[in-house]
Parts: sequence; structure tokens; C-alpha cells
Amino acid sequence: MTPDWIAVDWGTSNLRVWAMGPEGVRAQATSDDGMGRLTRDQFEPALMALIAPWLGAKVVPVIVCGMAGSRQGWFEAPYRAVPCTPLDRAGLVQVPVQETRIAVFIAPGLKQAKPADVMRGEETQIAGALALHPAFDGVMCLPGTHSKWAQISAGEVVSFQTFLTGEMFALLSEQSVLRHGMQGKGWDDAAFDTGLSDALSRPDRIGAQLFNLRAEGLIADLSPARARARLSGLLIGIELAAAKPYWLGQAVTLIGADALCQSYARALRTQGVEARLLPATECSLAGLASLARQLETTA
Amino acid sequence: MTPDWIAVDWGTSNLRVWAMGPEGVRAQATSDDGMGRLTRDQFEPALMALIAPWLGAKVVPVIVCGMAGSRQGWFEAPYRAVPCTPLDRAGLVQVPVQETRIAVFIAPGLKQAKPADVMRGEETQIAGALALHPAFDGVMCLPGTHSKWAQISAGEVVSFQTFLTGEMFALLSEQSVLRHGMQGKGWDDAAFDTGLSDALSRPDRIGAQLFNLRAEGLIADLSPARARARLSGLLIGIELAAAKPYWLGQAVTLIGADALCQSYARALRTQGVEARLLPATECSLAGLASLARQLETTA
Repeated sequence: MTPDWIAVDWGTSNLRVWAMGPEGVRAQATSDDGMGRLTRDQFEPALMALIAPWLGAKVVPVIVCGMAGSRQGWFEAPYRAVPCTPLDRAGLVQVPVQETRIAVFIAPGLKQAKPADVMRGEETQIAGALALHPAFDGVMCLPGTHSKWAQISAGEVVSFQTFLTGEMFALLSEQSVLRHGMQGKGWDDAAFDTGLSDALSRPDRIGAQLFNLRAEGLIADLSPARARARLSGLLIGIELAAAKPYWLGQAVTLIGADALCQSYARALRTQGVEARLLPATECSLAGLASLARQLETTA
Repeated sequence: MTPDWIAVDWGTSNLRVWAMGPEGVRAQATSDDGMGRLTRDQFEPALMALIAPWLGAKVVPVIVCGMAGSRQGWFEAPYRAVPCTPLDRAGLVQVPVQETRIAVFIAPGLKQAKPADVMRGEETQIAGALALHPAFDGVMCLPGTHSKWAQISAGEVVSFQTFLTGEMFALLSEQSVLRHGMQGKGWDDAAFDTGLSDALSRPDRIGAQLFNLRAEGLIADLSPARARARLSGLLIGIELAAAKPYWLGQAVTLIGADALCQSYARALRTQGVEARLLPATECSLAGLASLARQLETTA
């Protein structure tokens, strides 16, 4: 049975697709054909490789969010400028395709002039979170490789700020000299709390606190699990220090992978902020679904 | 003519050797047989590959500083604990070798219990700087992959602090998402000053300032040269912010590669500190020479 529409989340590393019916998700598929490894003419074949089994006679709308819409991606969907709603049917860009049974639309990201900032993909999660909780007014935080903090008011993204936290954690824990002292996947909550508290109380000392992890591994028997968790606490701590204007005294919703959101929630709790958690995939799908509904009513 | 002794600086990435006579450097050689790529039994052959042409009948002392003395290196030279002189003949560790015409000694690094810290190689440069300027009392800064700040008093290293600044710059400019906006080797002093001032005035916002470089490249035409220089300014800025107890109101000597030391000197000048610059190689050689003299007098 042909789906009503197809949802696509096309990131730098992964491609994820869902066949959608009136009842919700009917089928899903994933590949590692992320935007980062594709040339322009490889996008349509990469998509068809996953969705061809779902297609029938009629034309199916395919709604895409994420890096496929960047200048180096499949087809550029120019950023919309905040303040604005996170998604809007008018911003959708239709992609010319060879396959006649699909109509592909890419959702644009958001940009902010000052301080300069951009997002692609997260706007769809924000729209989804707003679709799930229409009355939400406050702050959404989307932890990840490039964490985003967004101030939401009256259904619009008012301002936002990106942090390199996840990417810094990956670089420092896997590629820097610190990697020698943090092999494995172990974790230690108390060490996370220590790093968090060190960074929040003296964020200006972050440069000095990082090498300590290496030195304590060499001369003070710091375990890999404690070193990894403390590094995470330090990096989330300097993010929270800089993002304070966003979360202080605000309702905070965290959208992202569960374990990471739990760490952020734990960190925010030490500052007296109780955050609500929403799963990232559910938000992405709800955001794309809101576009699908808009397409239907304007078709 | 056989040298009186041979100086060796054995780092993680490079091996550098000098044939020394009473008049100073007679010959030098370099290879990329750094400690990082050698197993324990490959050190002696790597050394001999460079120094064999210099050897004659008599036994020549070979004095080594750097990572060859680490636990993962050729032969461990256990750290000496500060406060102490940067180098001491008593700390030298003799390495068992097969070649009968050399006697190899490795200089140990220094460790500090609290805050935990270690150095290997820099202690030799500090000893050399003190040999060149025996009355020095103040602070030495050794910029590099892992920058060191050391407080020197009465010929001893009193305390020190390591920063990941150089390694962070390499990771962020070559491997993170920021790399897209900073290709090439261009430079812009004004952008360096901006980054420096941003980081020194609000070091707690470093997490937010990094992604700006990417966003301004995408939507505000930030050039690669300005992006690279501003990243450098930001990272040196948070180092200076955390190292303030070291340099505030102190005589500062910078030891390292010239261009990098010039950047640090420029940065310190904005804070009213005039630093003296010393070349790293000259300091390493002067430090190793001080050990050679001690070996001679105790032989």
C-alpha cells in the first residue's frame, strides 16, 4: 500500500526515511548515505535505494529536513531568518527529480544575523515539539554534536545559540592527548558532577582544567570512566555557563538522544531547573508531519 | 672528529640530534622517528641512524630530553616533583644500549601533585633559559601543542600549568566543522585581536564564540584568514584568562617557535605585559649542555 507521504531526515552522517499513513509510521529504513559522503547527483539514487519498495502508481510527497538542504547538499533551501516560525510551507523548496512517482520538498534551516548562527534539522524538531505541545513558551535545548538553545515565544523561534559541545567531546576524547586516559565507554556520575561544578563555578579556567585530566591519569590514577565523565561535565558546564541567559528562570525542554538528554537534565537540576525531555525522532516526525498537513491543505 | 657529546631532543613527532664540541654545535640531523611511532626496541636503531656517522673509537655521552623518557617511550625517567630545579644530574637515567660507543642518559620531566600536572622536554628549555639568564626570577611561558606556564624563583620551578591550546587549535581548525571556513594559511591581525579581546573579556562564553566562526562564514562572509586568526585569538585568550595568576604583574619570558611566540607577545602586550622571547632550540641545547657539564664534573 502506497504511503500518504514519506518523511526524510537527511543528516551529515545518516539518511533516515519513514513511510507515513494516516495511522502514523508504517515502515522505516536507514542508511549511512549521509550528506557528507554524497555528490549532488547521488542524492536521488540514495533516496530511491531506501524508498523504492514503498512506491506505487500515484505521486507521493517526500518531505526532507536536515543537511540535504545545505549549499553543499542536494539542493539549497535558503535559510529563513529569525524571529519566525520554525517551519513554514512557504519556505519549502521543491527539488527537481527524475523519478516521476515522487515530489520532493526540502525544509529550510534558520539563520540569525547577530550573533551569527545557523541551524538545519533542529528547526524541524522544534516545530515538532511545538506541534506536540502547542502552548509551549520558553526554551528548547537540543543537545548533540552542535547543541542548540532556542528561545520560543508565541510559536516562533525568537533567538538561538549553537555550541560545539558534542564535537569537542568527540575530538578531545578520541583524538587529543586526553584519549590515552579515557578508553572504553565507562561512566561515573560523581566525576560528571565534579567537572560540571568546576566549569560552572570557574568557566574562565576551562583551558587549565582539560589537561588536568591527562595529568591525573598519569600521576594520580584517574580512571578512564571518571576521566570521560569529568570531560563531559566540563564541556556541558561551559555550555551551561554561556547559555545561562537562555535557561535561567525558564521552562526548559530537552530534545535529543535519551542518555545525552539525561546528562543535560542532571546538569540543569544542579542549577534548580527541571527540564522536560522529548525524544528527537518523535519531534522530527511531528515537525515533518506538520509540513505534510500544510502541503495537503494548500494542494 | 668525534663530538664531545651528543644532544638529543626526542619528541612525540620528531627526533633531533646535535653533535656538540667545545665550540658549540658541529653538526645536526633530524628525522620523523618521533616517540609516537616507535616501539621500545626501535629507539636505539632510530638514534644510530642519525648519529652513527659522528661516532669514533671513544665513548660519547648522549643526553636526551623529551618524550623518549616517558613510560610509553624508550626507557622511563620518572618525573621529579616541583618545587625543584628544572634539571639535575642526579635525576638522569642511563639507558641500557647495545652500541658500545655511546652512553645514553635521559633527563626526567617534572610533575606537580596539585593541581596535577606534568611536563617532559619543557623542563630542559627552562633549564636552558636559566643557563642563559641565571638571575631570572618570574614566569616562563612555553607556547605549543601543550602550552606551559611556569613560575620560576631562585633557580627552581615553583609551580606550573599546562593548557591544550595548540592541540585545540589543530583539532578545531583541521578536523571540526570549523575547518570548512578556515582553509589555507592566511592570517589577519585585527581578527586575532578581536578573538583575544572577546575571550579575555568573557572567557565564560568561549563555548558560544566558537560556532560563530562557522555561522559567520556561512551567512556573513567571514574570510578563512580572519576565521583562523580569530580562532587563535579566542584560544590564546582563554589560556591567558586562566593563566592570569601567572602573568599579572610578572616578568614573562616566552620560549618557543617564533611566529607563535610573537602571537603570545602581542596578546600579552594588550594586557600591559612586555615579554622577552627566547628561541626554543637554543634553550633546549643550553639545557642539555648544562647536564653535559654536570656529567663531566662528576665523571
